Amino acid sequence: MARLETFADGVFAIAATLLILSVDGAVHDPGNLTHAWPAYLAYAVSFVTIGIMWINHHTLAGLVARVDRRFMVANIGLLMCIAFVPFPTRLLAEHIRDSSARDAALAYGFTLVVTSVFFNAVWFYAAVGRRLLRDDADPRVIAGITRAYIPGPWIYLGAALVAFGSATASAVLYLVIAAFYIVESSILGGRAQTAD
Amino acid sequence: MARLETFADGVFAIAATLLILSVDGAVHDPGNLTHAWPAYLAYAVSFVTIGIMWINHHTLAGLVARVDRRFMVANIGLLMCIAFVPFPTRLLAEHIRDSSARDAALAYGFTLVVTSVFFNAVWFYAAVGRRLLRDDADPRVIAGITRAYIPGPWIYLGAALVAFGSATASAVLYLVIAAFYIVESSILGGRAQTAD
Amino acid sequence: MARLETFADGVFAIAATLLILSVDGAVHDPGNLTHAWPAYLAYAVSFVTIGIMWINHHTLAGLVARVDRRFMVANIGLLMCIAFVPFPTRLLAEHIRDSSARDAALAYGFTLVVTSVFFNAVWFYAAVGRRLLRDDADPRVIAGITRAYIPGPWIYLGAALVAFGSATASAVLYLVIAAFYIVESSILGGRAQTAD
Amino acid sequence: MARLETFADGVFAIAATLLILSVDGAVHDPGNLTHAWPAYLAYAVSFVTIGIMWINHHTLAGLVARVDRRFMVANIGLLMCIAFVPFPTRLLAEHIRDSSARDAALAYGFTLVVTSVFFNAVWFYAAVGRRLLRDDADPRVIAGITRAYIPGPWIYLGAALVAFGSATASAVLYLVIAAFYIVESSILGGRAQTAD
Repeated sequence: MARLETFADGVFAIAATLLILSVDGAVHDPGNLTHAWPAYLAYAVSFVTIGIMWINHHTLAGLVARVDRRFMVANIGLLMCIAFVPFPTRLLAEHIRDSSARDAALAYGFTLVVTSVFFNAVWFYAAVGRRLLRDDADPRVIAGITRAYIPGPWIYLGAALVAFGSATASAVLYLVIAAFYIVESSILGGRAQTAD
Repeated sequence: MARLETFADGVFAIAATLLILSVDGAVHDPGNLTHAWPAYLAYAVSFVTIGIMWINHHTLAGLVARVDRRFMVANIGLLMCIAFVPFPTRLLAEHIRDSSARDAALAYGFTLVVTSVFFNAVWFYAAVGRRLLRDDADPRVIAGITRAYIPGPWIYLGAALVAFGSATASAVLYLVIAAFYIVESSILGGRAQTAD
Repeated sequence: MARLETFADGVFAIAATLLILSVDGAVHDPGNLTHAWPAYLAYAVSFVTIGIMWINHHTLAGLVARVDRRFMVANIGLLMCIAFVPFPTRLLAEHIRDSSARDAALAYGFTLVVTSVFFNAVWFYAAVGRRLLRDDADPRVIAGITRAYIPGPWIYLGAALVAFGSATASAVLYLVIAAFYIVESSILGGRAQTAD
Repeated sequence: MARLETFADGVFAIAATLLILSVDGAVHDPGNLTHAWPAYLAYAVSFVTIGIMWINHHTLAGLVARVDRRFMVANIGLLMCIAFVPFPTRLLAEHIRDSSARDAALAYGFTLVVTSVFFNAVWFYAAVGRRLLRDDADPRVIAGITRAYIPGPWIYLGAALVAFGSATASAVLYLVIAAFYIVESSILGGRAQTAD
């Protein structure tokens, strides 16, 4: 798992850091920096989203005892989605206030739907029948992750479909989802684990 | 090997993540996102190709017991090719439907031919006479890797030469090769190995 | 902590390396490379600033014995700021000599104020009541870090506000702060620690 | 040393991978890919140069037993230079055949002079009086590194000054220096070391 984690951490870190190019692209008029606030917001929402996914991948990896090539291929699919996130982020940052707003919001949501599907694929491949999990993995933790992952694609699909009514409402939902993850972690996340 | 792997993982991860710039460049008209489907496909094919090469490099590294400067120089050559992949990917993404399609397909194929040659160089330098391999490396695994690596340059050379007839056919072949690697891993790849 | 450090190191390293794009953007006229000296200076100041923050994060991580999700979320907030630094660096590099200089200097300073606030949040979350710290963490080291972190936001706020008088003076202050950190490390930093 | 190496490996890997942007910038006319051969050559020379410097940093790090803040600050200076290399590489790739060729060749050479100076600073800070070195570090290896590092700045200064006569000759010298490092490693580099 160690080297898969190194590669995964690299892709997560680079995808998150490349998000800044979305802001770069959105600021055409440096004399009016505050006008580009959707770009800053898109940057923050995507950074937090990738960050939360990184934490989840970290938790998942901690439960895995062994890997096989299928698991690695599924992970590459997941990372392919993560590395794609800067693109719809840029679309959203640049077009939320013009006539392409709906397409941008749909592209953003669709990317996260596919990402969530891959997250589920990676998890269920490892977890079904405890195929790749540690023998001492806590069944309640496993059930908890399963419960947390299944709604992911549906939540993002819902937020994406809202874009047919209002692209802005869809974008606000992406923000609310990211904020929810932070609040959830702030309330539930205080159980200390030993440093690894 | 540890630090060579860190550097290699970094280059693999960054090259894969920088592929998103190909999509960025191909979308000139955000109002028509679906029109850029060759860019999305080129992104996916190159990401999977780099991902599979990363898995292969991982397997190779697991068999190596010691490194010398020549081996490191050969690896730098290999990584130089991996880091080059985003460039022909961008060419293919932007030009598969214009008059530069043949040149783009040739550039893509030629890059992968040279990459495969370096992969063979790295492998044979380590494996001939078991120069750098672990004493306990399984001879059947060694023979299997040798059999799998040798056709690489020829397969990509063939796909590249097809571009003289049809650039699209050549691009489809790159897609088929990547898909083949995924299917091969899905069928053969279920043997679990202990997490490392 | 290990994987958080890998992710953090990745973001620090990528953000620092992406700073070169600021120089790229600032050199419109390659025949007159010396004219772009503010871009080189902005590159150096931001690289050193990110580098010093990386050293501080390294020291902080060395004192932490365990992590929880809140701590990870706080770190993601911090990394979100670090990854943002290339953007105001580019603004400063390109606009310090035109009419947007004040906005660029304010953006730079405000980014570092928020970054310093997150640094304090990460530190105090770990350190208050020694929540996440090692049992053997030296109280004098803890007190020293606390003393060193608290003024951070105020120093950068001061330097930012100077931009209302003179953007150039504000930029010079950012340079002086970075230089101060180097000098401080050169004078005080000679105590060798065992390699880790 | 571990985390300094992670950060350093990240910067080396990212700087090397970002070199591909030099090629991107140089190919304005995709119908004539071969015309951009100076860009490919500049990419290869810089990639190999950064790769060799990474190997040297790796060797150096293997001799270091402990780090202090001054050593880390010196390393940040070195990495600041490494991360700068993509910029003069791009200048050289784009301008070797126009009237800015001399400036581009000078910028390239000057960057490598400063990089070599920082390499010497890092090494001598660690090595003088064996301040940070392992007790069991072989004196002949130490003397060998010292002998190999001292000429570095002078070699690149010489190649840079040649640009006042001919920018092309200067660029050819950068190529010859990189080729020399590869050949040197191929001849001398066959002594296997245990994998680390």
